[in-house]
Amino acid sequence: MAQILPSALLDVIEAFGRLPGVGARTAERYAYFLLRTQTRTTHELSSAIEKLQTGVKVCPRTFALINPDESLSPLYTSADRDKQTIAIVEEPLDIVALERTGKFKGTYHVLGGVISPIDGVGPEQLHIPELLGRLKEDEVSEVIIATNASVEGESTALFIQRQISDAGIETQISRLARGIPVGVDLEYADQITLAHALEGRRKL
Amino acid sequence: MAQILPSALLDVIEAFGRLPGVGARTAERYAYFLLRTQTRTTHELSSAIEKLQTGVKVCPRTFALINPDESLSPLYTSADRDKQTIAIVEEPLDIVALERTGKFKGTYHVLGGVISPIDGVGPEQLHIPELLGRLKEDEVSEVIIATNASVEGESTALFIQRQISDAGIETQISRLARGIPVGVDLEYADQITLAHALEGRRKL
Repeated sequence: MAQILPSALLDVIEAFGRLPGVGARTAERYAYFLLRTQTRTTHELSSAIEKLQTGVKVCPRTFALINPDESLSPLYTSADRDKQTIAIVEEPLDIVALERTGKFKGTYHVLGGVISPIDGVGPEQLHIPELLGRLKEDEVSEVIIATNASVEGESTALFIQRQISDAGIETQISRLARGIPVGVDLEYADQITLAHALEGRRKL
Repeated sequence: MAQILPSALLDVIEAFGRLPGVGARTAERYAYFLLRTQTRTTHELSSAIEKLQTGVKVCPRTFALINPDESLSPLYTSADRDKQTIAIVEEPLDIVALERTGKFKGTYHVLGGVISPIDGVGPEQLHIPELLGRLKEDEVSEVIIATNASVEGESTALFIQRQISDAGIETQISRLARGIPVGVDLEYADQITLAHALEGRRKL
């Protein structure tokens, strides 16, 4: 059979197709867009991707992603961040979500995942010992466990809570509130969320 | 404000965000996937994108996309393609869709768009004169106008039909059938499609 598309285009379509959630049609659309757009835009994308993995380091204290010339995350070293409050998150991008609220002035601790026996992830693969170390060294007074509301996120939260208590560390532990999202009508809320919202009701 | 993510990661997120239909969250997800995946996958993507624009040429006869070492599209030169039948399509990727059916053995002619006064595209920007030339030179007996069923696609089809007749070229002209897509229930078909399906009904 004759080749329908040029190899250079097929290569890009195939490479885009490996991105999460990108099917054949979407990959074709991306590739065709790049083919027709300015050379500079295309070059900026390829060059940014090429520099990605060498241009990102992991903060040895918070496990957030940092620039190669930084030794610690600026979200930790900055003077206006409260080191005695730690938000524990699963992945580095969760930090972005919390920072966007503008409501958190503490520091972060990235677990690097959640406990998930099915995926072969045990507690020893997460940055929990480093967390316990930080709790002591920085005299942390509050820990907000901000793992996702999934089964794995909940059991990881429970595990961390026990580890802190087993280590004899005294600190306030909280979990993000579960409830009805802003803008969602009561009738559309799922029953588990609604049960959480009832349980966590607040006095006015 | 302290920088939340490393610059190398932000660059990739920004560059992905220029792709059609990619919002901030999707761009973040792509970038984070590349950061965590094998270096080889990331390198293959950047290198494929880098080579894209120099690795693709346009066939001067059919305006399909071809490899730089080809002078004409293999879908035109191949001996098992019927040069007397031409399918006229808007964009090069439309060829892929038609080839996937495995039901078309003619050749293609890519218009490079459709007539759209709103977007400033007039007939002079489309490859219509080259089409008329081909109709004569290859003694084309059938032209299938496979532009989209949009207003622009329909008026471009009409324009081409008139141009062919004005040029005094005798050839059979057809348009892709409009009707109810396979797998769609009658009750869900929109009224325009249903009207087309009625009008184009076939005797059994």
